Amino acid sequence: MQQPTLHTILSPRMLDIYDVRQSIFVIIDVFRATSTIATALYNGAKKVIPVDQVDQCIELGKKLNAITAGERDGKIIPGLQYGNSPAEYPRNFIEGQTLVLTTTNGTKLLHMALQAGADDVITGSFPNLSAVANYLIEQKKPVFLGCSAWKDRFNLEDTLFAGAVIHAVKSHFTIHCDSSLMAEQMYLQHKDDMHGFARLTTHWHRLSQYGLEKDLEYCVTPDGAPILPRYVDGALIPHSKTV
Amino acid sequence: MQQPTLHTILSPRMLDIYDVRQSIFVIIDVFRATSTIATALYNGAKKVIPVDQVDQCIELGKKLNAITAGERDGKIIPGLQYGNSPAEYPRNFIEGQTLVLTTTNGTKLLHMALQAGADDVITGSFPNLSAVANYLIEQKKPVFLGCSAWKDRFNLEDTLFAGAVIHAVKSHFTIHCDSSLMAEQMYLQHKDDMHGFARLTTHWHRLSQYGLEKDLEYCVTPDGAPILPRYVDGALIPHSKTV
Repeated sequence: MQQPTLHTILSPRMLDIYDVRQSIFVIIDVFRATSTIATALYNGAKKVIPVDQVDQCIELGKKLNAITAGERDGKIIPGLQYGNSPAEYPRNFIEGQTLVLTTTNGTKLLHMALQAGADDVITGSFPNLSAVANYLIEQKKPVFLGCSAWKDRFNLEDTLFAGAVIHAVKSHFTIHCDSSLMAEQMYLQHKDDMHGFARLTTHWHRLSQYGLEKDLEYCVTPDGAPILPRYVDGALIPHSKTV
Repeated sequence: MQQPTLHTILSPRMLDIYDVRQSIFVIIDVFRATSTIATALYNGAKKVIPVDQVDQCIELGKKLNAITAGERDGKIIPGLQYGNSPAEYPRNFIEGQTLVLTTTNGTKLLHMALQAGADDVITGSFPNLSAVANYLIEQKKPVFLGCSAWKDRFNLEDTLFAGAVIHAVKSHFTIHCDSSLMAEQMYLQHKDDMHGFARLTTHWHRLSQYGLEKDLEYCVTPDGAPILPRYVDGALIPHSKTV
């Protein structure tokens, strides 16, 4: 039997080159949206609703009696309650709650993937690396690893996460894709010093100005939040609750 | 004094993220347009005129009494005389001639860069690596390394050439760009076995079906055609003739 294909999309700008229908689409936004989503759900959040606009975030928060969160340039957006840091969502705070989250890059890509007809949208980050890899192997469907990038520019951290997934699943997929080959090679080159690597990225330089080093180190550490967020009926919920 | 900036653009799809005005834009299409352009000019071609359309290629060829060339899927396009292989343009054939060339990826990016207002457009490939690096160092202007990619998909060979240029010039530029960091790291990882590396790329698999292995090896070997093609008045001509 032929194995399903796997491709890596390095920026939202490259999305419409591919036919993503009938596939699993993995949204990757390592610093920090998808790391935060995995962490909040792992710590018991009922669901995470990703929205594009701040107004919509405030409105939904009121309507659902939910926690609202979002940052621009490392600061909480006026009108919202919390930020994009995984550390803000420990179990004793988030358990049983709904989180409405607005982010610049990850949310945009998620909505683009849905619009392009992706069949199954999940989110990936180092904190839930193994959960993502195991799910992809189980499903036996074509996969697109979608890097959210930074304002459409290629970024290293999302690419390295794609590489980590590829390294874990590649014997189960047919991969003829230079982006995937590059991503895995970059991952193998840096996997034994992910904290050192993170300091090389342009994103690190942006966020470390805001004192977020500890956050960023958490975001490149595998399997701190072993859960699989799946997009179902407008929200990201843990996969275990959907079966 | 602050050093000029350098960015790497991984696909034509990413071009309009950047403001390329007042900059030097390097068109990279390693397999094989920019390798062929360097080779033809090094072997004495008067100029190379890159055109988008086959019709335009035929028409200009007649008008200028020029050699017409272009391939699709490894075969010479009906109506044109020659292909995209550097080996087709030895000195005893091309010296003093004008070559009108149509290619899928490189020509498209060149016209996009011009339209976006790039100030100075040159072409780069391993056969003219050092000529490109030396020119960029001399000029002291902002630089964009533009990968032609394959039908807008990221490709490894153009990225590795960008990495080779970055490795040669980086002490002269300010580089805060994850694409550039990745490109240089990929280059350093593969530079001692470029022939082995080339065999990993998806493009190799496409072209090697047409028996072009020797061509592809030439295209990843540095400095076989040490010349700098610059776009002046609608054609690529050797830089030495422009000063």
